[in-house]
Formats: sequence, structure tokens, C-alpha cells
Amino acid sequence: MTTAHQPQGAPGETRPGGRTARTREAVLAAVFEELGAGGFAGLTMEKVSQRSGIHVATLYRRWRSIEGLVCDLLTELSADVPLPDTGTLPGDLRALARSITAFYGEPRMRRLIEAVVSAAARDPQVATVLRSFFGERLALAGQMVERAVARGELPAETDPEQVMSALGAPFYYRILIARRPVDAALAESAATAVWAAARAGAYPREGHGPADDATGP
Amino acid sequence: MTTAHQPQGAPGETRPGGRTARTREAVLAAVFEELGAGGFAGLTMEKVSQRSGIHVATLYRRWRSIEGLVCDLLTELSADVPLPDTGTLPGDLRALARSITAFYGEPRMRRLIEAVVSAAARDPQVATVLRSFFGERLALAGQMVERAVARGELPAETDPEQVMSALGAPFYYRILIARRPVDAALAESAATAVWAAARAGAYPREGHGPADDATGP
Repeated sequence: MTTAHQPQGAPGETRPGGRTARTREAVLAAVFEELGAGGFAGLTMEKVSQRSGIHVATLYRRWRSIEGLVCDLLTELSADVPLPDTGTLPGDLRALARSITAFYGEPRMRRLIEAVVSAAARDPQVATVLRSFFGERLALAGQMVERAVARGELPAETDPEQVMSALGAPFYYRILIARRPVDAALAESAATAVWAAARAGAYPREGHGPADDATGP
Repeated sequence: MTTAHQPQGAPGETRPGGRTARTREAVLAAVFEELGAGGFAGLTMEKVSQRSGIHVATLYRRWRSIEGLVCDLLTELSADVPLPDTGTLPGDLRALARSITAFYGEPRMRRLIEAVVSAAARDPQVATVLRSFFGERLALAGQMVERAVARGELPAETDPEQVMSALGAPFYYRILIARRPVDAALAESAATAVWAAARAGAYPREGHGPADDATGP
């Protein structure tokens, strides 16, 4: 965790780099260490308070719950996955797939996403946070698809967010469903697959069906 | 839930259609109803016992935990997603994608998979069950890819289980991460994407890299 990231969306956040930001940094670092030590099941506000030195009442006031803390940590850490601009869509897809692989290569990151998905299953407010978090990331990442459409690499009716969802999907399937580590082969496969599928018209904007000649009978 | 499915893997199962099978059917039906009524968070052995009329000690003896019950239910219900054999891989992929969409079109099914993934995050034994459950399903579904390779529709070095993982991945992403309902457009997109990507060599067996001409620079 670095202070270079703009803290975003934390309740009470007003002065980046100020005391509020330092409190957040200490608390999120503590959450991250606790996740590494005991996973989500053993995570409590009290443990985060002890490790961070921040009073437990402050934690409840600013983050409401353990789930709120974990979601905020996810937002913070996602700034570590840069959005590439290599000049070609295949290059961008491959670079992003490699960043995602590096990110989830750490077991603690896999536990974090497991924790967030589990929390969302139990708590509708976490589900809302998760949906909006991934929505924002997809919209940002979609810019690389928009550039590709502008360059003529993809059909004009391509839906950027569908393309980016399709790039991410194999990683979450691997982590949450297949329950095996992500690796370089997965990154390569995901990038190759999305590039071929996008060119075949598999990710049309609403109202444009997938190209029939690509689907077959 | 129908009695037509072969009960599989339940501890103590010896006579399909016998008393043990009827017990399992009653218990799994109760779990399904409880999930629909209150979701996973409110699910307890006691509630399942009350609804099914099966003694709680029997539940603990045969299924060990709520997580064990939910995994067994998943196994039972997955028999409702038939594996197609239409004569072409695009036809098979589209038919299977539509079956998956119908399966997870029910909110209760989405809650079920959320529950299983959450349970796996907390309990390594559930994680093992989940991994082996999806491993078996992938191996079975992979037969449609093997037939396609035999028909010459796909490169010989195609990995069947990777293809089937790629077909499933967008559905689990939609449910667990994007947290929106699955729909016909997703089925169409998933089938179109996997067909295009598989032909481009995106799912090679270990030791065969993705086709370089499909990946670009």
C-alpha cells in the first residue's frame, strides 16, 4: 500500500495526505495483514483496531462493518492494476491480463476477493458496493476498447464493458469456482480469447446481435 | 427435484430409490426451500430438520455441516443442466449456454452458487468438494469439445476443459462479481466468444502456446 493513490470514497475523507488519509492507510494496512494472517473468517473490528492502533469506535463510524473495510481495501488495492495503453488492443489486453495475474498471484489477494464475494452474498450493501466498484473499473478499462474501435481494430458496435468483463471472467472463475491459482498461461489464454471473440462480434452493444457467421448454426 | 436423477456421492447411499435416497430427497428439497425463503445466512441444520422431518442427528451424520448439504444440493441440481449433442460445436455451445442461463435464471440458483462459493472461502473441505464437483462437470462437458476435435472443427491441441471453463466463466462473473441477472444475450455472447476463441487457438493443451497470429504483437 502506498500513499501515492488518491484515497477515494472513504466516509469522512476530505484531505488527501492529511490525518484522515493516514488513518485510512493504517487501517487498510491492518486489514490486509489480518487477512494474510487469518483470512476473512477470523477478521474482526477488534483485531483491526489492535493492529492499526485506531480506536474501534472510529472503525465502526467510518466503515460500518468488516465488510465495509474489506470493500474499501479492494478499492485501494485496485489502483495497483494499471490500465495499459500500448497502441494496439491485443497488446493492451495482454498487458492487463498479466497485471491481473500478478495481482491475484498473491494468495492474500485471492482471499480478499473471496471475502468480498462472500460478504456480498450476506449483505446487500456490500453487494451494492461490489457492483459499483466493478462497474467503475469496467468503465475505465473500457477506454482501451474505445481506442481500439477508433483505430478500426474492432467493429463499431462493440460494447467496451462487455469486452472487459470477458477479460476478467476467466480469472474470477479460476479463483472462485475452479479454486486453482492464476498463472501466465491463463493470462495468455484470456487475452487471446477476448481478442478473437471481440473481432468475431461476440460483444455487441445492446440491440446488435452477435455476428451470425461467427456463431454458426 | 425429481427422483429420476441417480443420487451420487451422498455418504451412506447404497440403494437408489430406497429409504436412504428418499431421505436425501426430502432433505435436499428442504435445503432448497430454505434457501429460497431466507438465503444462506439464515440456513441452519435445525431449520432443515424441521422442514424435512429428518432428525438433526441424521443430518449431521450424513452431511456433517450446512456447507456439506449445500454442496450435495448443487450436485443434485446440476443433473438438470443437460449436456447437448447437436452435431456441431457451435450448436452444442449455444445449447449449453442456454441451459446454464435457464438454470441460473432462477434467483434461488444464484443464491445457491453464492452460498457454495462463500462456504468454500471459509471451509477448506467445501473448497475441495467444489473443486472436484466442477472438475467432474468440466470433464463430462469436455466430451463435446473432443467430438468437435474429432470432426475437425477445432485444432487437435485444444484443451476440452479449458474450453468448457471459458463457456462457464461469464456466467459466474455475471452472478458473483457484476451481480446482475444472467440473460439470453449473455448466453449468445458466451457461445459466440468461446467458438471464435477456440478456433483461434486460445485454449491449448499444456505445452502448446496460443496461436501467435491470433494474439498479435
